[in-house]
Amino acid sequence: MENFISNNTTALHFGKGVVDNLAKTLDLKGRNVLIVYGKGSVKRSGLFDNVMGQLVASGAHVAEFGGIKPNPLVEDVENAAALARAHNTDLIIAIGGGSVIDSAKIISITIPVGHPAWNFYTRRAIPKTAVPLVAILTLAATGTEMNPFAVLQNLATGQKEGYGHPLCYPKHSFLDPTLTITVPKDYTAYGVADLIAHCLEAYFGKGDCPLSDRFIFAIIGDAMEHGPQLLDNLTDYDLRAKIMYDATMALNGLTTQGKVNGDWGVHGIGHILSLLYDTPHGASLTIAYPAWMKLHREKAAERISKLGTNLFGTADVDKTIKGFEDFFRKISCPVRLSDAGILNSETGKIISCLVKNNVNGSNYRLTETDYQMLLSNMQA
Amino acid sequence: MENFISNNTTALHFGKGVVDNLAKTLDLKGRNVLIVYGKGSVKRSGLFDNVMGQLVASGAHVAEFGGIKPNPLVEDVENAAALARAHNTDLIIAIGGGSVIDSAKIISITIPVGHPAWNFYTRRAIPKTAVPLVAILTLAATGTEMNPFAVLQNLATGQKEGYGHPLCYPKHSFLDPTLTITVPKDYTAYGVADLIAHCLEAYFGKGDCPLSDRFIFAIIGDAMEHGPQLLDNLTDYDLRAKIMYDATMALNGLTTQGKVNGDWGVHGIGHILSLLYDTPHGASLTIAYPAWMKLHREKAAERISKLGTNLFGTADVDKTIKGFEDFFRKISCPVRLSDAGILNSETGKIISCLVKNNVNGSNYRLTETDYQMLLSNMQA
Repeated sequence: MENFISNNTTALHFGKGVVDNLAKTLDLKGRNVLIVYGKGSVKRSGLFDNVMGQLVASGAHVAEFGGIKPNPLVEDVENAAALARAHNTDLIIAIGGGSVIDSAKIISITIPVGHPAWNFYTRRAIPKTAVPLVAILTLAATGTEMNPFAVLQNLATGQKEGYGHPLCYPKHSFLDPTLTITVPKDYTAYGVADLIAHCLEAYFGKGDCPLSDRFIFAIIGDAMEHGPQLLDNLTDYDLRAKIMYDATMALNGLTTQGKVNGDWGVHGIGHILSLLYDTPHGASLTIAYPAWMKLHREKAAERISKLGTNLFGTADVDKTIKGFEDFFRKISCPVRLSDAGILNSETGKIISCLVKNNVNGSNYRLTETDYQMLLSNMQA
Repeated sequence: MENFISNNTTALHFGKGVVDNLAKTLDLKGRNVLIVYGKGSVKRSGLFDNVMGQLVASGAHVAEFGGIKPNPLVEDVENAAALARAHNTDLIIAIGGGSVIDSAKIISITIPVGHPAWNFYTRRAIPKTAVPLVAILTLAATGTEMNPFAVLQNLATGQKEGYGHPLCYPKHSFLDPTLTITVPKDYTAYGVADLIAHCLEAYFGKGDCPLSDRFIFAIIGDAMEHGPQLLDNLTDYDLRAKIMYDATMALNGLTTQGKVNGDWGVHGIGHILSLLYDTPHGASLTIAYPAWMKLHREKAAERISKLGTNLFGTADVDKTIKGFEDFFRKISCPVRLSDAGILNSETGKIISCLVKNNVNGSNYRLTETDYQMLLSNMQA
C-alpha cells in the first residue's frame, strides 16, 4: 500500500427532493450568484425555476450563463468568467451534467486571475483561490460532483484535457436521482459505461491496494447488475438512484486510496475520438477499453484475470475482455469504431491526433508504435 | 435507497512516516496545545517525543493529560477538560487508540461548556462549538479516527454509551501503520473483530443499499483475508497497513450511505460485558455476534444468507453463523462467555444490566424476553 491523503471536501446531499434544501443549506442573503447551465432543458424541467426561486427569496443577486456544450469549451469558460467578474460573483451554482460542472470548476478558479483559463491546463499557472461552487447534478456519469477534476476542450489548440486541483471540489453537491429520469436511454447507458471505465482506470493504475480492488469490483458489479435493469425501466427512481450513487463513488477518490494513481490512458484515447468525431464520452470509452485490454493482454494478464475472476467468474484473459464487450453491447454501447460510424480510412487522422496529444497513460504506457495495433483492435 | 448526506470532514494522512508531517500540516505557532494519551507506551516508543519536538520547534505551548483508560471514563474527560480550560487550549492532539481519541472528542466539546460532559450522552445538552482535534492513531480497530463517535463509560451511573456529533470529527488524523506494529497479538485480533463487527452493524441496519452491502463484503473480505496473515506476521508493515485501512473504512460513514442507520444492538450487548467484566471491546463482540445472529436467525434469514453467499460461499444461515464463529476462533477470539472466563452463574447479573441499559438495537430490536435466549446462545 502507498501513502495517501484522503480529504474530500464536498458535502454530498443525495436523494429525492434534496434541491429543495439549497436555501436552507447555504447562506444566500446578499450573495452575487452566477448560475451556469447547458441546454435549456433545466429551464423546461422547472429545476432552474426552483433554484432561482430559492435564490431570489433568500435575497441573492443572480446572473446566468447558459449554453455550455456537451464537450465543454474553454472559450465558454472564459466568457462565463468575464461575466462573473462583472457581476462580482461570490458563489457559483452549476446545474447540469459533467460538462457544466467541469466548466464551473474552471470558471471558479479563473474569475480571480488575470490570465487565460487554459494556463491551468498547461501548468503555466496554479490557482491560489476559487469562488465557492455548488453543483446540482442532472446526469449520472462523470463523478465530477465529488471530485476536483475538470475536462475541457480547446478548439484553438485542438486539445481535450483533464485538470484537477483541490480548490476545484464543489463545496456542496445536490444529487436528486429524480432529475436524471428524463435522461434518454443512450446517454443513460453512456453514463454506466463511463462510471465503469473510471473504476477500470483506477484498477489499472500503479500501486497495489487489495481493498481498493474490492471497492472497484463492488462498484462495477453494482453497475453491471442495475445498469441493464435501469435501461429497461428508465423512470424507476430506485434504479436511477443506484446508478447515480455508483457514478459518484467511481471517481471520488475511494478507488485509488493506497495506490499511486489511476492509468487514464483509455480516457486519453476516448478524448481523441470525442475531439475528432464528437463521439459521446461514454461511447468513446466502450470502444477504447476492449482494444486497450487486448493491446496489454500480456503485460496486464494478471490484473485482467483478477478482474474476470471477480466480475465474470472466469480467470481467462480473453473471456474477461469478451465479458466487457458483451456487457457494453448489452447496454447498446459501441465496441468498435464502425459501431460509432467511424470509417477505417480515418486511421491516419486518429493516430496523428494521438501523437499530437501524446496520449499514453501513467502505468501501462502507450507509445507511438502501439497506436497502430490499438486502432486495429478498435476496428476488428 | 434512502436519502443521505455525506460530509466527512476529517483529513486522513495515511502511511509510513506521516506523523513527521504534523508541523507542516498544522499552523502551530503560539497555539496552546493539550496532548491527550493513555498509557506511557507512546512515551516509551518515541512517538510522544516526535510530536512534542515538532510542537516546541513550531512555538506551541503544550500541556499534557495522560492515563486515559482502555475502557475510557467520563471522569477522566472532565478532569482533562478542566486542565485544558486552565491552559486556554485551542488545539487538542490525541495520541493513542480508540479510547484516547474518543475521550479527546468529548474533551473538545466539553472545554467550551459549563455543564458535565455526560449531559451530551443524556441529550440534556447539544454542543455548539468544539476545540479542534487532531488524532494520531496507534491501534487499528474502532474507526474513531474518521468519524464523529465516542464511547465512554460512566462509573457513577454504571453506563457505557456511544455519542456522536458532527463537531466531533477530528480535523486531521495521522495513521502510520508502523505505530501499530507493537500491538500484541490478542489486541490485534480484537481490532480485526471490531472492524468486522462495525461492518455487520451497518449491514444489519435499516434500509436497503446494495452498493453499501458490496462495500461491506469488500471490507470484511479484506479483513478475513489479511487478518489471519497479520496474526502470523505481526511486524509486517503492509499487512498492518491493510488492516488499519480496513478499520478506518469500516466506520467512516461509507457502509451506511443510502441506508437509514446501523443496528448497533450487538455493540450494546458488548458494552455490557466490558462494563461488568472489563472484557476487551473486540472480544465482547465475537461472543455477542454469533449469539445475536442465532437469536434472529429467522427474522434476518435473508440477510444472513446473503452474507454467507458473499463471504463463505454458502447461502445456508447456520453455516454462515458457523463461518463467523470459525473465523473468530481462528484469530483466537472468544465466541462463548466461558471463553472469556464468564461463568453461567452470571446470567442474572448480565440480564439485569441489559435491562438497566435498555439494550436493543435499532432494526432487529431486542426485548427483555430475548435476553434469556441471547444468554443461552452465548453459553452453549
